[in-house]
Amino acid sequence: MSIFDPRLYLVTMRYDFGAEELLRRVEAAVRGGVTMVQLREKEIEGGEFYHLALQMRVLTRKLGVAFWINDRVDIALAVEADGVHVGQSDLPAKAVRKIIPSNMLLGVSAKTVEDARRAEEAGADCLGSGAVFPTSTKDSPEMGTTLLAEIKAAVKIPVVAIGGINAANAKHPLACSVDGIAVVSAIMKAEDPFQAAKELRSIVDSFLPPPNQ
Amino acid sequence: MSIFDPRLYLVTMRYDFGAEELLRRVEAAVRGGVTMVQLREKEIEGGEFYHLALQMRVLTRKLGVAFWINDRVDIALAVEADGVHVGQSDLPAKAVRKIIPSNMLLGVSAKTVEDARRAEEAGADCLGSGAVFPTSTKDSPEMGTTLLAEIKAAVKIPVVAIGGINAANAKHPLACSVDGIAVVSAIMKAEDPFQAAKELRSIVDSFLPPPNQ
Repeated sequence: MSIFDPRLYLVTMRYDFGAEELLRRVEAAVRGGVTMVQLREKEIEGGEFYHLALQMRVLTRKLGVAFWINDRVDIALAVEADGVHVGQSDLPAKAVRKIIPSNMLLGVSAKTVEDARRAEEAGADCLGSGAVFPTSTKDSPEMGTTLLAEIKAAVKIPVVAIGGINAANAKHPLACSVDGIAVVSAIMKAEDPFQAAKELRSIVDSFLPPPNQ
Repeated sequence: MSIFDPRLYLVTMRYDFGAEELLRRVEAAVRGGVTMVQLREKEIEGGEFYHLALQMRVLTRKLGVAFWINDRVDIALAVEADGVHVGQSDLPAKAVRKIIPSNMLLGVSAKTVEDARRAEEAGADCLGSGAVFPTSTKDSPEMGTTLLAEIKAAVKIPVVAIGGINAANAKHPLACSVDGIAVVSAIMKAEDPFQAAKELRSIVDSFLPPPNQ
């Protein structure tokens, strides 16, 4: 398993591009400084998701970063992902924990302090909390940094901030002592995903040391 | 695990009714003669699917029939279903076989002789072949009974016919020596699911003996 390093966490999103372009952008982003990758696919069927995940598994292994799958625990199991992330309307964390091997990590979305505590109790290894800022990617209400800081303070497991984060506002969630920032459109939609990741990573590095140091 | 008995195989479908009515209809159908139940949900999120599957697991255990899940292998694992059924555009059979326990059965959709042979080779325990007749449930071309008989002859594993089967036409696939018929709307949409299942079961019984006799 790759080391767990959520400092600059890329969550994929299909805009108008296909699988090949998605893989190209993820590779550029990792070379620019992304420390882990989560494949999120909401519109495609299981077979297509699986084949894309297999390619992403090979790519992330080559690049030496952790590879997570969003929602579909069966696909995470089938491609031996390093982790799986579930939202509050997906398979419950407790049920996921029971069907994944002990070396597969579990991430859970937490929009409230109560979500966060419940997820930690259910065996989550990490939380994704947001949307910190307004975002077009998901229909999530903006939580702001005060609640983010409360969530971080309420649990022992790592908390990654997500939602509308970009180079211009990344310092605000990072100032809440979160363990990383997750970005979607700031990298996936960037004209140059390598440069976008590089810029974000330099901001992250000014707040967070590499893990285990 | 319940005995595998695919003679009258009910595949659920949500029409305009909710979870409670779905459970009520499934119970009536099993009391009328359905021998196994597959929960198929295409529109709901993982969490809702899981909670419904848990209720269906309890119900089918009480009624003593096998309970299968369509497509979502993770949900089948989480609720300890007796089997999981995948279509040709879902997670591939070989990948499913690797992540399910040896006592969980695997069904695969086969529309062609080649599909059928490949699925058997990949470790499928049973095939669902259709659409035998025109159906409004799925956008599948009608295969007719000649191809159904060819598929049945091409493999050693049980073959269940599916697609547009009702009390008026059930004898045609059953005459192809298939191991069972799967029905969706003929029971789920029936005014009286108990009576609909009873009528279908009496037709099935005139062709197929109970398993292990």
